[in-house]
This record gives sequence, C-alpha cells and structure tokens, in this order.
Amino acid sequence: MMKLAAGMAATSLVSVANKVNARELPNKKVLVHHVFFWLKNPTDVEARKEFENGLQALVKVPQIQSYHIGTPVESPREVVDDSFTYSYIAFFSNEVNQTIYQAHPIHLKFIEDCQHLWEKVIVYDAMN
Amino acid sequence: MMKLAAGMAATSLVSVANKVNARELPNKKVLVHHVFFWLKNPTDVEARKEFENGLQALVKVPQIQSYHIGTPVESPREVVDDSFTYSYIAFFSNEVNQTIYQAHPIHLKFIEDCQHLWEKVIVYDAMN
Repeated sequence: MMKLAAGMAATSLVSVANKVNARELPNKKVLVHHVFFWLKNPTDVEARKEFENGLQALVKVPQIQSYHIGTPVESPREVVDDSFTYSYIAFFSNEVNQTIYQAHPIHLKFIEDCQHLWEKVIVYDAMN
Repeated sequence: MMKLAAGMAATSLVSVANKVNARELPNKKVLVHHVFFWLKNPTDVEARKEFENGLQALVKVPQIQSYHIGTPVESPREVVDDSFTYSYIAFFSNEVNQTIYQAHPIHLKFIEDCQHLWEKVIVYDAMN
C-alpha cells in the first residue's frame, strides 16, 4: 500500500479536553482500529447492555491508547451508512501494539463472551 | 436510534501527546465522522497527491476539533476491509458543528475539486 506523501501533516488526534491546536501534532503516528458491529437484536435492551459491558471490559487492554464507543448518528444522505448498531474505535500508537491487543486474553474473552450477540462485523484499520 | 446505557463511560478520546489517562474523560461527547474513499486510480501518484492536497485544505474547516488521515493497514483477517484508498476522520464536539461543516464553503470546494478522483465513498457517523 502506498504511503501518504512525505511531510504531509496527516494526523492531529489531539485532546478534546485541553484544546490543543489541531496543527500541533503533525507527525504523530496513530493507528485507528475502527470496528462496526451489527447486533442480531439491536433493539434488545438486555443484549445491548451485555454488549456494552463487553466493550467496557475490552477497552481495559493496556495497549489501547484511547478509544471511542458510539452509536449511529442518523442521516438522510445516501453516502452515510447508519445501519450499524455500535461503533468502536481503539487508537494504537503502532502496529505492534495492535498485534499484542489482538492476542490479548481480554480481547479473546470479549470475542468469546459477545460474538453470539452480533451478526456482522466490519473492521477498518488506518494509519497516517 | 437507542442511546448508550446511562452513565456508560463511552469515550476517552484523549491526547496522544500528553498521555492523559484514557479513563479521565468518560462523559466527553465526541462525534466521529469517518469517511472512506476508494479512488478511481489508487496507484496514480498524481491523483493521490491531488487528493491529499484536497484533504489538507478540507481540514481547515474551523468546526473540526481534530482529524486523522490515513491509508489502510493491510490484514489477512476476513473481517478487515482494507480495500479503501484513504481513511479520513473529522472529530466534532456536537452535531451542530458537523452541520455547519457540511455546508461550509471549504467542504463544498473539496467535493467540487476532488470528487472526480473517487469512485466510492462510505461515511459512518458515530457519537457516544
């Protein structure tokens, strides 16, 4: 895969708390691991609670630098896919940390405990 | 769409620079606007450069709190879609800011200037 043009300021994943200027971290490497889950029963409150508890346990994997767990923002725009049930992003500082995460007992337990809840998963991994 | 369970610590989008603990920002709202682009000619260096320049102009929209521009991390795992050419994430603090962004002249110019370069776009918007 081709890399971004050299010197391109490709990332500014900065704190939302301390208002760091978005252009202050141009060369920081961030691996974005974005997972979309479609639950079998997206309106089942108990299933959702179980899944959310699973995610809360999952994000304790120490290689995760930060994370975001969300639900769809609905949109009438055709290019927007708002059909998923949960969005989960884990941010890693490099590929090695994701590899450790993938094999981590907490991650394996999440899959074991929660995979019965979803019918579809798509993962996108992107790095600047 | 159902919301996350009340009190759930759903977000910790924290600075990668200052090592803020990932559990310190449990209630901060973040709208993740994640766009995947499949270019018509993903190996065309000039097309890529043009597209990257377009993104660099796009992220100057002031409502963008932070952003990440990346390319795929290839994976043999079946659940991973690594077929896209570019990943672009803009983080907003709320839906209003995304609405302003969507109508912003810089955003409209990006679409006008660059849409001839891509053959497919998927957008996912998620909020904690």
